Amino acid sequence: MKTTGWMEQAAYHKSQLEAAIPGAWKLSSAAQADLPLNVSNLVRDCGQLDAVELEIISLDATDLAQAIAKRSYTAVIVTTAYAKAAAIAHQATNCLSDYFPEEALERARWLDQELERTGNPVGPLHGVPISVKDQIGLKGHLASCGFLSAITETKNDSLLVSIFRSAGAVFMAKSCLPQAIMHLETDSFRGPTLNPYNRNLTPGGSSGGESALLGCKGSAMGIGSDIGGSIRNPCALTGLYGFKPTVGRVPTKGGDGTAIYGQDTIYGTTGPMCRSSRDLELWLRTIITAEPWKRHPTVLKMPWNMGEVSYLNGGARPKIGILWDDGVVRPQPPIRRAIQYAVDKLKRAGFELVDVKPYKSEEAWNIISSLYFTDGGQINRNYAARTGEPLLPLTEWILSQNTKARSATDIMALNLKRDLFRADYHNYFHSLGVDVILCPATPGPAPKLGTSKYWNYTSFWNLVDYPCGVFPTGLKVEFSDLPDAPYKFTGKADEEVWKAYDSPGSFIDAPLGLQVVGAKYEEELTLQAMGIIAEVVQGN
Amino acid sequence: MKTTGWMEQAAYHKSQLEAAIPGAWKLSSAAQADLPLNVSNLVRDCGQLDAVELEIISLDATDLAQAIAKRSYTAVIVTTAYAKAAAIAHQATNCLSDYFPEEALERARWLDQELERTGNPVGPLHGVPISVKDQIGLKGHLASCGFLSAITETKNDSLLVSIFRSAGAVFMAKSCLPQAIMHLETDSFRGPTLNPYNRNLTPGGSSGGESALLGCKGSAMGIGSDIGGSIRNPCALTGLYGFKPTVGRVPTKGGDGTAIYGQDTIYGTTGPMCRSSRDLELWLRTIITAEPWKRHPTVLKMPWNMGEVSYLNGGARPKIGILWDDGVVRPQPPIRRAIQYAVDKLKRAGFELVDVKPYKSEEAWNIISSLYFTDGGQINRNYAARTGEPLLPLTEWILSQNTKARSATDIMALNLKRDLFRADYHNYFHSLGVDVILCPATPGPAPKLGTSKYWNYTSFWNLVDYPCGVFPTGLKVEFSDLPDAPYKFTGKADEEVWKAYDSPGSFIDAPLGLQVVGAKYEEELTLQAMGIIAEVVQGN
Repeated sequence: MKTTGWMEQAAYHKSQLEAAIPGAWKLSSAAQADLPLNVSNLVRDCGQLDAVELEIISLDATDLAQAIAKRSYTAVIVTTAYAKAAAIAHQATNCLSDYFPEEALERARWLDQELERTGNPVGPLHGVPISVKDQIGLKGHLASCGFLSAITETKNDSLLVSIFRSAGAVFMAKSCLPQAIMHLETDSFRGPTLNPYNRNLTPGGSSGGESALLGCKGSAMGIGSDIGGSIRNPCALTGLYGFKPTVGRVPTKGGDGTAIYGQDTIYGTTGPMCRSSRDLELWLRTIITAEPWKRHPTVLKMPWNMGEVSYLNGGARPKIGILWDDGVVRPQPPIRRAIQYAVDKLKRAGFELVDVKPYKSEEAWNIISSLYFTDGGQINRNYAARTGEPLLPLTEWILSQNTKARSATDIMALNLKRDLFRADYHNYFHSLGVDVILCPATPGPAPKLGTSKYWNYTSFWNLVDYPCGVFPTGLKVEFSDLPDAPYKFTGKADEEVWKAYDSPGSFIDAPLGLQVVGAKYEEELTLQAMGIIAEVVQGN
Repeated sequence: MKTTGWMEQAAYHKSQLEAAIPGAWKLSSAAQADLPLNVSNLVRDCGQLDAVELEIISLDATDLAQAIAKRSYTAVIVTTAYAKAAAIAHQATNCLSDYFPEEALERARWLDQELERTGNPVGPLHGVPISVKDQIGLKGHLASCGFLSAITETKNDSLLVSIFRSAGAVFMAKSCLPQAIMHLETDSFRGPTLNPYNRNLTPGGSSGGESALLGCKGSAMGIGSDIGGSIRNPCALTGLYGFKPTVGRVPTKGGDGTAIYGQDTIYGTTGPMCRSSRDLELWLRTIITAEPWKRHPTVLKMPWNMGEVSYLNGGARPKIGILWDDGVVRPQPPIRRAIQYAVDKLKRAGFELVDVKPYKSEEAWNIISSLYFTDGGQINRNYAARTGEPLLPLTEWILSQNTKARSATDIMALNLKRDLFRADYHNYFHSLGVDVILCPATPGPAPKLGTSKYWNYTSFWNLVDYPCGVFPTGLKVEFSDLPDAPYKFTGKADEEVWKAYDSPGSFIDAPLGLQVVGAKYEEELTLQAMGIIAEVVQGN
């Protein structure tokens, strides 16, 4: 009976979402059946959006906000364009967990009236649609951590949403996340979310609903969260810009649907998922200039200060460390090509580059994976048991990584290891004499569904709690990206990642992103450096 | 055999300290036997210091640093003056755990040479003696958490000490702390430390070695630490200025002798113990302008910024909330007199004062006391068991406060309570519309030895992690401070505190300090406001 129960509940939630999509914006069953592998241009090509709407969704959030403020578009027109785009994105990739265009349109009408009445936009994001990862609390909507039994209705906006709302944002959708919010993919009772560039592949995770939606241009900006790569991984795999701040720099608490509460061993953080580098800054600036530390004690009082970065106004450039490989898992050929390409371009542009050695990657994974579930995973198993919903293989996998129920003394011993690792790494980083490190964000392009098991190109930076972002190189997997011949593997993870890249054809069109890392609390510096690097790498 | 063992070890450590005091600076056994109850002027009156040395020890650190920089005194003369003063302070109050005047004089000679050679002081604290609480690591010296078995030699300076050293400070002594560093008194295998104003009383704790030393003018500035009141309590009880920053604002880690490592549930912080309000700022400014966040990842990147406080350069004054009583334990008559005195003076000076209601004090204590020892106290019991050293009654007492061995799930539940409390209090504080709160730091003047059991006038602010300082009102216990008649007690703690104040005569001369609290991360504002308040309260 339980089994029937969870399947019925899952079907109910999926049908609710289906019903929320207006008939006019539904793909025909023929179109649905005929969807190409690459649906990243489906919104453009499907014929649902008119020329103005296509113009709107082609803008980044920065340009869009300016255009609305200048009355080039009304909030209602913008909202309509994105409501259509989000509906189509969902039908192609299964990216949404909630969709409420009527509520969004009502808000848009109010915004238009306010602009009319006062002559001024409500805030810096007046009329800009922002999509929200499912666990982040949005008043009056459901939130969950990817288990049916955890679904709850949010009474009050989370602090992040509340600030964006005051800034004039429009909310119209929440996006899928994986069971337990702990896969680098996006699969749950809602079924897998697919990569818009190649629907055989994952859009990454855990913020993969966001990445699929944004990758389809179904949203202007997104709110993700990251405890092991969950913003950076999906952005890197779908051609987006993402940023994981140092913990505490942006609000994480308040009315959300997080899986585990009160665990101090390792913290996640929310952060921006965007379609341009400057949108990352718009997102962070909007949040941090609202002085969120006055509203929640977990937010650090660190004002936003792009001006302090020394090379901001011309002059010196960032000095860049290059980490080609983490010493444990060799990046697959397309990623090696991407980093070589970036290095060549930066060298030609005259940047000072320094090769950086990998730093105890395996130990880092052993530590951070032991910190994720100090209850041995029981809280998550209980979520599943309540409805009979099965644990997915990637949930079982992460719960098998150095996970067991710990005593208080065990936890202290693990935390001490963590603290010593962090202190040692901090000294190491500062000894390098670089501003930032450029490195892979993932061991390869977007993986085939259900195969994402190597987290450490991103989770390493959660362990040391360094800010880092990802940017698209502009490159994609090509047929010339031939697999490596077998080599002497460092271990099982290395072999698995090698084996997974069976042929470029399996990954064709998958975008290639890279990662830029700065020192703890150096959000402004890291973002600024990444913007400069991205421009050089993407340029001709 | 074990019992003999620990007593012999304790005797050895005490004899090592005795031996470090030059014979010429020893009090005669007659003088020792004849010590008055109030030894706060013993250094002045004992005849060991000449007129220049007495002038030196009468200065606060700010004036002293300026005088040395202007070559009014050499570092050697200053060090000699304080070496004598510290030796005398120790003989009168048992305040030191380590004493090394030769090393200090060698350092002073070097500092004098450097000033001669370069024409400039080595740093802002050139030649200023700073005393160090025993657990804080000082290279080449022993550190402990008040248990014999925990004594270890420090290989590298803690970050704090290293910064002070670079700033030109002179180290000559480490100071006593209580067993487990978890009494609001200072008793261990070294025996109790006594209050310089009334040797029947405690100088507070856990940084009570510092407060006794500084209270005797045996040091220019001190380094304390505070997880439940351990800086503020001893400063309030000995007429000093103390400040507990928000966790992370100043370094706590690196080479220290902390009792428990790796426990995240509640953090302590180091901070200044000083003889003037402006010295608190000198201490904090010296540490924070050294950018310690580049040297340890637990330090927040929050530059020191007194300039941002709006009323710093004249203009508006801080708006002050008055918390007369925490609603659980009624302050003893002298403290009620002190706060009334402060309020009257502030009112007369035209400050805007608002009465503030106590906020869930009992719940706060239940939460924070459950967070101190999540192992049920086993780590501390083990320290004792290793040598057979008995647990002292105040150690047993704190280990009886909501303490038991917790599972990972228990810890999460407690942390969640903590987080919700913090968030609720943060909203409450900001709803008050005040800049700071003025309140008692302790339920009474310095207690009789072994009776300090009510922590919550200070520990409440550790739970919510708000910055707060204490200052001396200039008042002391008077014979007119008659005990209260029995009243309807709120509970056992209230009754115990009432009963402990048996007669003003028992507490005569004990200084009365008060506490000023600001919002999280508002160190500069809180310090600035406390300086203004202290000046008004102490003025005529």
